[in-house]
Amino acid sequence: MHQPTSLPRRRLLAGSASALAAAGLASFQGQAMAQAAAPAARPLPGYAGFKNADAVIVHSSTTIETRRSAFGSSVVTPTSQLYVRNNLPTPPESIVADRDAWAVQIDGVNRPRQLSLRELKTMGLETVTMVLQCSGNGRGFFPSKPSGTQWTVGAAGCVVWSGVPVRDVVKALGGMAGGMLYMTGTGGEVLPAGLDPKSVLVERSVPLSAMEDALLAWEMNGEPVPLAHGGPLRLIVPGYTGVNNIKYIKQLAFTAKESEAHIMSHGYRISPPGSKGDPSQPSVQEMSVKSWINSPIPEDGNRAAGLVQIQGVAFGGMHAIKGVEVSIDGGKSWKQARLVGPDMGRYAWRQFVLPAQLPKGTYQLASRATDVRGNVQPETRGENQSGYNNTSWADHAVTVTVA
Amino acid sequence: MHQPTSLPRRRLLAGSASALAAAGLASFQGQAMAQAAAPAARPLPGYAGFKNADAVIVHSSTTIETRRSAFGSSVVTPTSQLYVRNNLPTPPESIVADRDAWAVQIDGVNRPRQLSLRELKTMGLETVTMVLQCSGNGRGFFPSKPSGTQWTVGAAGCVVWSGVPVRDVVKALGGMAGGMLYMTGTGGEVLPAGLDPKSVLVERSVPLSAMEDALLAWEMNGEPVPLAHGGPLRLIVPGYTGVNNIKYIKQLAFTAKESEAHIMSHGYRISPPGSKGDPSQPSVQEMSVKSWINSPIPEDGNRAAGLVQIQGVAFGGMHAIKGVEVSIDGGKSWKQARLVGPDMGRYAWRQFVLPAQLPKGTYQLASRATDVRGNVQPETRGENQSGYNNTSWADHAVTVTVA
Repeated sequence: MHQPTSLPRRRLLAGSASALAAAGLASFQGQAMAQAAAPAARPLPGYAGFKNADAVIVHSSTTIETRRSAFGSSVVTPTSQLYVRNNLPTPPESIVADRDAWAVQIDGVNRPRQLSLRELKTMGLETVTMVLQCSGNGRGFFPSKPSGTQWTVGAAGCVVWSGVPVRDVVKALGGMAGGMLYMTGTGGEVLPAGLDPKSVLVERSVPLSAMEDALLAWEMNGEPVPLAHGGPLRLIVPGYTGVNNIKYIKQLAFTAKESEAHIMSHGYRISPPGSKGDPSQPSVQEMSVKSWINSPIPEDGNRAAGLVQIQGVAFGGMHAIKGVEVSIDGGKSWKQARLVGPDMGRYAWRQFVLPAQLPKGTYQLASRATDVRGNVQPETRGENQSGYNNTSWADHAVTVTVA
Repeated sequence: MHQPTSLPRRRLLAGSASALAAAGLASFQGQAMAQAAAPAARPLPGYAGFKNADAVIVHSSTTIETRRSAFGSSVVTPTSQLYVRNNLPTPPESIVADRDAWAVQIDGVNRPRQLSLRELKTMGLETVTMVLQCSGNGRGFFPSKPSGTQWTVGAAGCVVWSGVPVRDVVKALGGMAGGMLYMTGTGGEVLPAGLDPKSVLVERSVPLSAMEDALLAWEMNGEPVPLAHGGPLRLIVPGYTGVNNIKYIKQLAFTAKESEAHIMSHGYRISPPGSKGDPSQPSVQEMSVKSWINSPIPEDGNRAAGLVQIQGVAFGGMHAIKGVEVSIDGGKSWKQARLVGPDMGRYAWRQFVLPAQLPKGTYQLASRATDVRGNVQPETRGENQSGYNNTSWADHAVTVTVA
């Protein structure tokens, strides 16, 4: 029994990793768990022990990627296989011991104060489905090999978030103070000792326009937000790359200026190749139109000739998807794919499918999405020093062989 | 560390239960796992070891209910907390070892044949979000205490299914044979020895009209369908109660008559109180409009006076939800609630919310849904011998105290 494709076995592995961590037999970084995570090149870190080890690639103790073959076709990405990218070590589990006691300071409003999660839950409720995507997703396709995790497609997922709209909180606290231009969120991670806090603090500013659909979220995919994904409370900024969605949020401030934390002023900037990040360069914030194929892909092995359902995901970032084209000849010709399954709103991704008869041969499969504003996914990536925002359809194409 | 509210701990418990089962230290029925599932009154059975033990009530080795407090507000029910109701013991894990090799016989078409899951995956793709609900959900509210599991609200969940539309399969096999009136699915469970197969076989017939949106599904909530929920392949009949959604489907036949299996001919019939089931009585098939409140509820304890977000779920069965009213005085007066979050189609449930100021006191909270056809959730249950189809809003009301 217990073949690799068996769900119970995979869960067992994850559970065992947690068990080792809980028993103090593994360090926080998880180096001692090789036994428990045999199918992965690296073991799952303890805080992510509930992940499906067969569905993810563990790049490091703070970076875990969903396998392209694991995305499936059911729209929502299960929490058990959603990517992880933490900028600092995960806070201790004690912060999710009494979730409702978590407190966030709200500043830059007319009546600034601290609010507990218990209080936030009484103030309003909204649910938003959103593509959560790391700014560096697709970095692995840059020929320049920028430093950082070599993500291909799996630093992204489509997640249902529930919480209180930020605008309801602002209203309850007397409205925004005058002169504010940014919404600035500060993470509650424990900062490493001996360093200038500004050099490591996770604090990001987004334009005020991003507040309209933003949430302070305590639930994702029907469960309390796990510690691995920012629980007990995470700032959700739909349409904005992952780093702007502050985990363990301890302060939400409306500010006249952008944060001076390094991660805002110099990190996550679109820097010309060869240059360093600085505040004059565009910050990595709003996502734009993108798609990729998840099946068939090379890792599934050769396929028999005949009918195949070419499928993948497409999202517009800030705008809904209008349509997706698929090519089987590397972009020489395109056919319109069909959007499949529920439309979960403009920030969610859509599944697409194109049935195709494929005789024996080798095919370059590509997808190209268009959003409702008419923005078309580009052929080429925008070159930048750190490998951010790769939406190139050519980079995301796959070559498959039909035997 | 490791408080009861901590997700990693709950997963750990589930994983540990699996671990015991995998090591042969627990029987299939799971009786030996008490140590691993302390928070539940009964331990999780081995095949369901991946469930979140804190989010479910284990009634027996084949019946597991989602706790009312666990539904949350993110629309989709995580697989880790979805209810289980099996009519026979779960098949061995070996059937999910090579999922693509699973075969289903298609009969009552012009070119009947066996199709492997590998072949089905090439034939078409659709994704449907659907309320899966046991016919007996709400049985626990019948004062007559019908025999069977005493489900309250948790034998239901909203699930995203992906697979091939049955109509695509029929088309590929030359269309339906003449004179057929029913779609009949047969489960692949191992039948207990020494009994007449018809007395135990899980085989159900639904009217041909149910074929239109039916799927042969291999994926749920973004993952291969777990064995616990009918993997590798399950017949999905949107809008129909759980028993009609045949697990481990090994035969799908278009037939001129209903199945003569006992579960069809005498089981799951709406029988007048005091009588036995027989084929002349209505079969439990299409669901109808229903809703209930998930927060606040008594098990969450007393609440502080002030603003509260009254929330719950509503679905129409065959038709989309038009609206939901909420009462705080046991149905004397009603206010229109707001539908929250994504609309995932007519078979899915919607979340609803009504903000209310509640001074100190005791409140009877009720919800009443209306579908787009104008069907209104009734105040009273339809009495029947086996406690099926309870949609009474009065039965689903809760009494909460504000301190």
